[in-house]
Amino acid sequence: MSEIVVVGSVAIDSVESPFGKQEECFGGSASYFSYAASFFTPVKLIAVVGEDFPHYFKTVLQERGIDLSGLEVQKGKTFRWKGKYEGDMNVAETLDTQLNVFQQFSPIIKLESCDYLFLANIDPRLQLDVLGKLKIKRLVASDTMNHWIRDKRDELMQVFEKVDMIVLNDMEARLLTDEQNLVKAIKKISEYGPSKVVIKKGEHGSIAFYEGNIFTFPAYPLEEVYDPTGAGDSFAGSMIGYLAKQDNLNMNEFAKAIAYGTVVASFTVERFSLERLREISTAVIEERLQTFRKLTRF
Amino acid sequence: MSEIVVVGSVAIDSVESPFGKQEECFGGSASYFSYAASFFTPVKLIAVVGEDFPHYFKTVLQERGIDLSGLEVQKGKTFRWKGKYEGDMNVAETLDTQLNVFQQFSPIIKLESCDYLFLANIDPRLQLDVLGKLKIKRLVASDTMNHWIRDKRDELMQVFEKVDMIVLNDMEARLLTDEQNLVKAIKKISEYGPSKVVIKKGEHGSIAFYEGNIFTFPAYPLEEVYDPTGAGDSFAGSMIGYLAKQDNLNMNEFAKAIAYGTVVASFTVERFSLERLREISTAVIEERLQTFRKLTRF
Repeated sequence: MSEIVVVGSVAIDSVESPFGKQEECFGGSASYFSYAASFFTPVKLIAVVGEDFPHYFKTVLQERGIDLSGLEVQKGKTFRWKGKYEGDMNVAETLDTQLNVFQQFSPIIKLESCDYLFLANIDPRLQLDVLGKLKIKRLVASDTMNHWIRDKRDELMQVFEKVDMIVLNDMEARLLTDEQNLVKAIKKISEYGPSKVVIKKGEHGSIAFYEGNIFTFPAYPLEEVYDPTGAGDSFAGSMIGYLAKQDNLNMNEFAKAIAYGTVVASFTVERFSLERLREISTAVIEERLQTFRKLTRF
Repeated sequence: MSEIVVVGSVAIDSVESPFGKQEECFGGSASYFSYAASFFTPVKLIAVVGEDFPHYFKTVLQERGIDLSGLEVQKGKTFRWKGKYEGDMNVAETLDTQLNVFQQFSPIIKLESCDYLFLANIDPRLQLDVLGKLKIKRLVASDTMNHWIRDKRDELMQVFEKVDMIVLNDMEARLLTDEQNLVKAIKKISEYGPSKVVIKKGEHGSIAFYEGNIFTFPAYPLEEVYDPTGAGDSFAGSMIGYLAKQDNLNMNEFAKAIAYGTVVASFTVERFSLERLREISTAVIEERLQTFRKLTRF
C-alpha cells in the first residue's frame, strides 16, 4: 500500500441540475480525487484555499484520514465554480468561475519524492513545476482541460512527455488530437509520452490504453444522475487509489482499477457534491463492483 | 439449432461517408439481418423486391444458404434509400427514400408456425398481420423506427404486447418512452410487454433488459468506421441467430448473444454494404469475440 500525493483545486461549487440546486457546496478536482482515493490508500492533498474555506469541509476530508498538511490557507477567497446541467447532463454549462486564491496557486512541495502522484486539472506550467521538484518512484498521472489544450499546448506536451498516465475526457481527447475516433485519439495521445491513457466518456463509460492494449468499459447503469460534477475526478481517484493500494501496475490490475473508477464515479453522481461518497464504505464499493462484473459478463 | 424467419426490407442503397461513396449497393434491414444470422443458424427471408433487383444480390444471400423462397418479385422498382454520414457518424442523414414496391408490401406467409421470428423495421400494421398468421414456438423479436413511434403508436403498442423481445436504438427508446435516461427507458419498454429489450447505442455499445436484470456492453473499439448502415440489423441478426443456434433463452446465453451482436456489427461497419460480412467466417467471429472478452474483462 503506497501513498498518493494529489495536486489540484479545492473549491466551493454552486450546482444546478434537473434534480435541484446546491449553493456553496464542497467541490474541486483534488477534493473529489482525494475522497475517492481514500477508500483505497493514504492520500496527501496539496492545494490552496482562502480564509473563507469552511472548517467543516476540512473535517469531511479529515474523517477519511486525508493528510491536509499541504492544504495552504491564503488571504482571500476560495476558488468558486458555478455550473448547470441540462438535457443528457453530459456537459456542464459554466455559469461563473472565480479563481480567487487559486489564481496565484503555486504548489508548495515539501517532499523530495513520492510513490504515486496525481496532477489534477491545473495549469500545465504548475504541473511541470511540481514534476521538477518531486522524484516519483512508481507512477505519475495527470488530467487537463480544454482551456490548457487550446492555450498552453507546448507546456502540456512537456507534461505528457514526463507522465506515465493521462486521464482525460472524450471531448478533451478529440480536441487534443484532432481525431474524432477515440481509438485513434488514444493511440495518438500515447505517442505524446504516457504508456497508459484513460479517456472518460461520462455515461458512455471509458476507453483505455495500456502499453499497446486497448480496454473498453461501459458506465455503471444508473436510473438517476443528480450531479455529474466530480465524476471524472473520483473516477481517477479510485482508479489510482486502487493501483497504489495494490502497488502493482500490471495490465490486469490496470483493468480492475478502471472498474473501480467506474463504480466509485457512479456513486459520486447519485447525489450533489461529496454527499453520496460520504455515505458509502469499501464494502459498498466491493458490492457494486461485483454487480458491475455480473452485468458486463458474457 | 432452429430456423429464424425474418420479415423486413431488402433494398438498394446509395451511401456516402467520409470514407467514400457507394452507389446502388445491397442494403435493407432484412438483408443485413439474414446475412448476419446465417453465420449461426438457417434463415428464411420474407421480403419484396422489384424487377430491377440484381440477380447478383440474390446470389450473395444464397451463398450463405439463406432460404429465398419468400422473396417476392413484384412489378416495379426495388426500395431505394440514399443516405449520408458525417462527423461522429452516429446518425444517417437520409437524402432520398423511394419506397417503390415496398410501399404495397404485404408479407405472404406460407408457413403456419416457426421457432424464431424477427420483425424488422416495417409498418407495425404489417408486423401485427404477420403475428396474426404465424404461430411462434420459441421467440419473436421486433425492431421499429421513429416514424412508426410518432405516427402509429397504437399499432406499435399492440405489437409490443405480443413480442418477447424489442431491439431498438437509443433515440427510438427515448422517443418511445419520453425518458432521457436509458435505464428508465428500458424498464418502461419492458412494461409495454416484452420480457427482453435491447437498446443499441451505436459506438457507445448497448444496454439490455432480461426479465428484470440489466446488462450493459461497450461497442467493439474500431479505428475506422466506413459505413454504419446495417450495424443495428446485423447486431440483431447475429444476436438472435446465436439464440436460435443454441435454442436456449437463459440469461447467460442472452448476454453472450449480445456479445455476438456487438462483434458482428463491428465487422459490418468496417466496409460499405455487406462487403465486410462477406469476407468473414464463423472462425473470424469467434476470434473477435475472444478479443472482445479480453478487452472488457477485469
